[in-house]
Amino acid sequence: MGLIGEFSYSASAVGCSYRAAVRSCLVSIRVIVMDIATIVGFVGAFAFIGYAIYTGAGLPAYIDPGSLMIVVGGSIMVVMLRCSLEEFLNAIKVAGKTFKNPLEKPQELITQLGEYATIARKDGMIALEGQEISNPFLSKAIGMLVDGSEADLIKKTLDKDIELMKLRHKQGAGIFSAWGEIAPAMGMIGTLIGLVAMLGNMSDPKSIGPAMSIALLTTLYGAILANVICIPISQKLVNQSELEAANAELIIEGALFIQSGGNPRVLTDYLASFVPPKFRAELLEAQ
Amino acid sequence: MGLIGEFSYSASAVGCSYRAAVRSCLVSIRVIVMDIATIVGFVGAFAFIGYAIYTGAGLPAYIDPGSLMIVVGGSIMVVMLRCSLEEFLNAIKVAGKTFKNPLEKPQELITQLGEYATIARKDGMIALEGQEISNPFLSKAIGMLVDGSEADLIKKTLDKDIELMKLRHKQGAGIFSAWGEIAPAMGMIGTLIGLVAMLGNMSDPKSIGPAMSIALLTTLYGAILANVICIPISQKLVNQSELEAANAELIIEGALFIQSGGNPRVLTDYLASFVPPKFRAELLEAQ
Amino acid sequence: MGLIGEFSYSASAVGCSYRAAVRSCLVSIRVIVMDIATIVGFVGAFAFIGYAIYTGAGLPAYIDPGSLMIVVGGSIMVVMLRCSLEEFLNAIKVAGKTFKNPLEKPQELITQLGEYATIARKDGMIALEGQEISNPFLSKAIGMLVDGSEADLIKKTLDKDIELMKLRHKQGAGIFSAWGEIAPAMGMIGTLIGLVAMLGNMSDPKSIGPAMSIALLTTLYGAILANVICIPISQKLVNQSELEAANAELIIEGALFIQSGGNPRVLTDYLASFVPPKFRAELLEAQ
Amino acid sequence: MGLIGEFSYSASAVGCSYRAAVRSCLVSIRVIVMDIATIVGFVGAFAFIGYAIYTGAGLPAYIDPGSLMIVVGGSIMVVMLRCSLEEFLNAIKVAGKTFKNPLEKPQELITQLGEYATIARKDGMIALEGQEISNPFLSKAIGMLVDGSEADLIKKTLDKDIELMKLRHKQGAGIFSAWGEIAPAMGMIGTLIGLVAMLGNMSDPKSIGPAMSIALLTTLYGAILANVICIPISQKLVNQSELEAANAELIIEGALFIQSGGNPRVLTDYLASFVPPKFRAELLEAQ
Amino acid sequence: MGLIGEFSYSASAVGCSYRAAVRSCLVSIRVIVMDIATIVGFVGAFAFIGYAIYTGAGLPAYIDPGSLMIVVGGSIMVVMLRCSLEEFLNAIKVAGKTFKNPLEKPQELITQLGEYATIARKDGMIALEGQEISNPFLSKAIGMLVDGSEADLIKKTLDKDIELMKLRHKQGAGIFSAWGEIAPAMGMIGTLIGLVAMLGNMSDPKSIGPAMSIALLTTLYGAILANVICIPISQKLVNQSELEAANAELIIEGALFIQSGGNPRVLTDYLASFVPPKFRAELLEAQ
Repeated sequence: MGLIGEFSYSASAVGCSYRAAVRSCLVSIRVIVMDIATIVGFVGAFAFIGYAIYTGAGLPAYIDPGSLMIVVGGSIMVVMLRCSLEEFLNAIKVAGKTFKNPLEKPQELITQLGEYATIARKDGMIALEGQEISNPFLSKAIGMLVDGSEADLIKKTLDKDIELMKLRHKQGAGIFSAWGEIAPAMGMIGTLIGLVAMLGNMSDPKSIGPAMSIALLTTLYGAILANVICIPISQKLVNQSELEAANAELIIEGALFIQSGGNPRVLTDYLASFVPPKFRAELLEAQ
Repeated sequence: MGLIGEFSYSASAVGCSYRAAVRSCLVSIRVIVMDIATIVGFVGAFAFIGYAIYTGAGLPAYIDPGSLMIVVGGSIMVVMLRCSLEEFLNAIKVAGKTFKNPLEKPQELITQLGEYATIARKDGMIALEGQEISNPFLSKAIGMLVDGSEADLIKKTLDKDIELMKLRHKQGAGIFSAWGEIAPAMGMIGTLIGLVAMLGNMSDPKSIGPAMSIALLTTLYGAILANVICIPISQKLVNQSELEAANAELIIEGALFIQSGGNPRVLTDYLASFVPPKFRAELLEAQ
Repeated sequence: MGLIGEFSYSASAVGCSYRAAVRSCLVSIRVIVMDIATIVGFVGAFAFIGYAIYTGAGLPAYIDPGSLMIVVGGSIMVVMLRCSLEEFLNAIKVAGKTFKNPLEKPQELITQLGEYATIARKDGMIALEGQEISNPFLSKAIGMLVDGSEADLIKKTLDKDIELMKLRHKQGAGIFSAWGEIAPAMGMIGTLIGLVAMLGNMSDPKSIGPAMSIALLTTLYGAILANVICIPISQKLVNQSELEAANAELIIEGALFIQSGGNPRVLTDYLASFVPPKFRAELLEAQ
Repeated sequence: MGLIGEFSYSASAVGCSYRAAVRSCLVSIRVIVMDIATIVGFVGAFAFIGYAIYTGAGLPAYIDPGSLMIVVGGSIMVVMLRCSLEEFLNAIKVAGKTFKNPLEKPQELITQLGEYATIARKDGMIALEGQEISNPFLSKAIGMLVDGSEADLIKKTLDKDIELMKLRHKQGAGIFSAWGEIAPAMGMIGTLIGLVAMLGNMSDPKSIGPAMSIALLTTLYGAILANVICIPISQKLVNQSELEAANAELIIEGALFIQSGGNPRVLTDYLASFVPPKFRAELLEAQ
Repeated sequence: MGLIGEFSYSASAVGCSYRAAVRSCLVSIRVIVMDIATIVGFVGAFAFIGYAIYTGAGLPAYIDPGSLMIVVGGSIMVVMLRCSLEEFLNAIKVAGKTFKNPLEKPQELITQLGEYATIARKDGMIALEGQEISNPFLSKAIGMLVDGSEADLIKKTLDKDIELMKLRHKQGAGIFSAWGEIAPAMGMIGTLIGLVAMLGNMSDPKSIGPAMSIALLTTLYGAILANVICIPISQKLVNQSELEAANAELIIEGALFIQSGGNPRVLTDYLASFVPPKFRAELLEAQ
């Protein structure tokens, strides 16, 4: 593998820039695709619910500001009580970032790391300076390589960063999960308040139906808030955190390999074992 | 055990081809049997539910496209929101594959490994080339033996493959399990929407029953989707993953043994301790 | 402790046969007692439920073949879908065996092991041949001693057997536990089907009560099937598995001790620390 | 700390007997106090429920022997089915003992251990004979010291005792926890039986209310049995087991220290780190 | 980093006092801010519920002393039954303390530790005496430094304190969590008692509504007590305990560093890796 010599490296370095262009283009497409998947999920879920509402009794029958207030406002208050305003806002920020910045696929990171390894081997670590790197973790790792940091320090610093990142995601997921538990409870409290009012005053039988209809709205709001918003976001954050940590592990392995001055092809072969077989074949072909 | 000499090996190699034919025949039967069990499960469950529906109010009374849409469509949208379209399609593919390709029983793998060990010992690893092997993991292991890979590399490569396979199955099971949680929630949301509509307009008492009947349909759909489809599939994937991993461990042990050039009978004796006593006796008799 | 000499051994060997007779007698009684406890549990639970049914509306009002079919048949189908017919039948067999063969108490096993140690020390391992041993695990261990197996092989073989036994019990318990989850779900599905039928056709107000009465039967069946049959059996299997594994550990310790030719009294003293204080005193007195 | 010399020891030994008297007095008070807390809990909970019943429809309306039988009797039968009569009676015995014998506080044990260390150092282990020790675990530990047992044997024997004690408590807690799960299920089964009877025969509209009233009684009984009796007792057993194990660890540490002939003051200082700061100060002052 | 010399230290010591003043001022503001967040949570949640009650049937319709008694009093009694009066009062005290004393942010502790390290390096440990330290854990650590304790003793003592603190918080959280489980159960028991009374006496149809209205109040009280008070407090205690333990770990690291006489800047650099990137930058700038 190391037999192809210096010439092929420069060729591959040329190939790099072409492949990099194609890739960055693919990345943009994928970003949009991923956003579409997320948006389709949200829009689709609400479209189906909206259709059911439309064919039910029409939207106005399902809108009650007071009911909305007790479920949304009340559940946010209880979540704040549990975790402080700062953590709550942080969780929303983490969630927003997760939906905006889709993760790189591991095979893209491997290709990128392979290219940097090629550059570093040919022109030295210093040649990595000025690369435009979208992944902040990879950017930091390459920055440490450019600074000439020791392998030990690179590993320790990046490991600590992974740990803190996981903690941040876990807290964010925990807050959405707590919200997803409190929202239906608030819905039930609202319905009970409505039922108590309705049952206490049944002099006009005609008013019973509409009163109960409104009482049920808080349960409906609570179920939608929990099941269509809070719980899926919480689970998505847990998922993303695992994938992001796996990517970060990959980057650490790659950075340490580059720091040790190893052969780029060996690196690609090694990292290829981290991805499923079908992508592994692609990676090895692309070499 | 190693005293029977070279002659018995060729005899056993001849016996092999006969036994192999019988076995491949038995495998086909078992595949059909297993498919039948799975199909009986699905068909039977829906037959019982269908009978209840038929004796209830007849099928038409239980079909409502709008209700079906909010439960099936809405729950798929929420699952997508949680995991991206790609993972969702992957989960369905994993589930489909699981139902189509039943697992080999460990005792069949042991017999097969014993035969390959006999061939390898008699004619060298290279003689294993061209064997038709249905289990892809065993096929890969034998391929590495034919290529003359080192024991270390075989173990490392196959271990990584087991790990990735487990992860893939876990993700698939996780998605069906999430679907099984969201489906009844969507059913409840649909029923609440129907109840709110019904209660808000009770001027015609005759319409109350049918309206509530339709409102309950989404709850019914959610319960069926979750309990008869999503949750059993999720549990089956978890089960299969454990069995497949156990088979893979067995194959690794066997491949490493063949690589070390050990006696086929010792291999069968050793691997026999991985299966329950009753199959162990069969295996040792069959030798 | 080892000071009493050879004479006492033969005396104790004589005493053995008497004690063995008494013990085997006590075992039979205990088997019956235990069966009685189990039978009392089942019969009693159904007697209380039957009494409630009798004082309710009489048995005929609670029997509806269609409802029984969807709950029992439907839930079995879904369990089969999850685990294949073979595993399902296996689980029922494991459960049956558990109820038929009550476990030995640890103190009985210790006494038995003490006797075998005495025999082995006096007349050699070979003298253990032909002992009638009801516990199959102990029987296998003593068989290996008679065969003159090495300590290492005894330990390895029996450890693997414990592992496989635990796995079998875990699978059995898992299937009953899954059945206990699906049965109430099937009951709810049946009730929903009945409610939809009833609500869709309320022209005859007199039929509403009886229709709903029948609709509720599936929920009742599901609750009884889950709570009186499936879940208790699942928990009993988990319990039994733990106790059986503890007994097996005890037997392994004892067999290894006998294999090493140690003093029977030291063995009893050592194993006595595995049982609660009150039985410990009995064991040491009985010596 | 070891500088104060022999004289202070005898003084402290004199002080001991006075302090011991005061302490034993305080213990008795605390026992009563603790019993009062437990009794207040039980009596109070039933008093609040009784008041609600009294202001509801009066006690007679809430007593129905048949309903009581299916919930209490039926749930006991199912628990027995799960665990054998012996374990069930054992669990009740464990629970009774827990409520009768409150635990010593760690600081009391530390003071006691300090006194025994003083006695042992001054007059030898043998002088510890004949001490009246209420804690059976401490009594056993001191007994082993008097017998002159080795440190290793003391540790091994007492560790095994802790393990068996934890197992016994875990089983007891597990049985009450299982009872707490089955009781509401039995309540629901009883209510369903009542509802089916009521709905099947609605010819007399006046009887509907009372029939449903009685049907709901089993649900009420199940909720009370589970939430006011079974679950709190199960949780109390888990709690007590943790505290008792912590006390036993303390006693082992102390006994090993005394066996090694160490300075009593060093012992108190060392063990003081096992209790919360405020008690630590008291302990060090009391020295 | 250690090159700037002694002069800069005194300068930084001067800067310290200014920064310390600013910081203590910021701390006070933050305390108030945090209290506001907590207070906003409580007040806000009850405001939303109060608004729903006001627009429902007005406050008087929702107040029933008997219902309040069975839910609040009954659930407290059951919690006491589970844990003794002492532990219950302790849990309330722990909760109160948690809400009154907000935690320092790690970056503030790091700055403080950096200042103490500077003082200790310049003027010796003894110069740390008389510092006003609000964090009791930090105060104890600095006190041990002033006393000249060994590193080993500092670590052991403070580790034990963390352990006991975690245990105390866990017990407190466990009691609120148990309360949060029992409160809705008591609410259900109260509602069942009301329903049984109502159904048993339906002679006056006009009284049915109001009777059921009151019966539902206990369910409402139970849901509010559990979801707005007990569960959020339990979760907050778990959260706070984790953060407080993390702070304590930081303090131990810092104290051991100061005890070893290390360079203050190295300390800040080291501890900075314990906080998220954005605070890390601030810390390093502030140096």
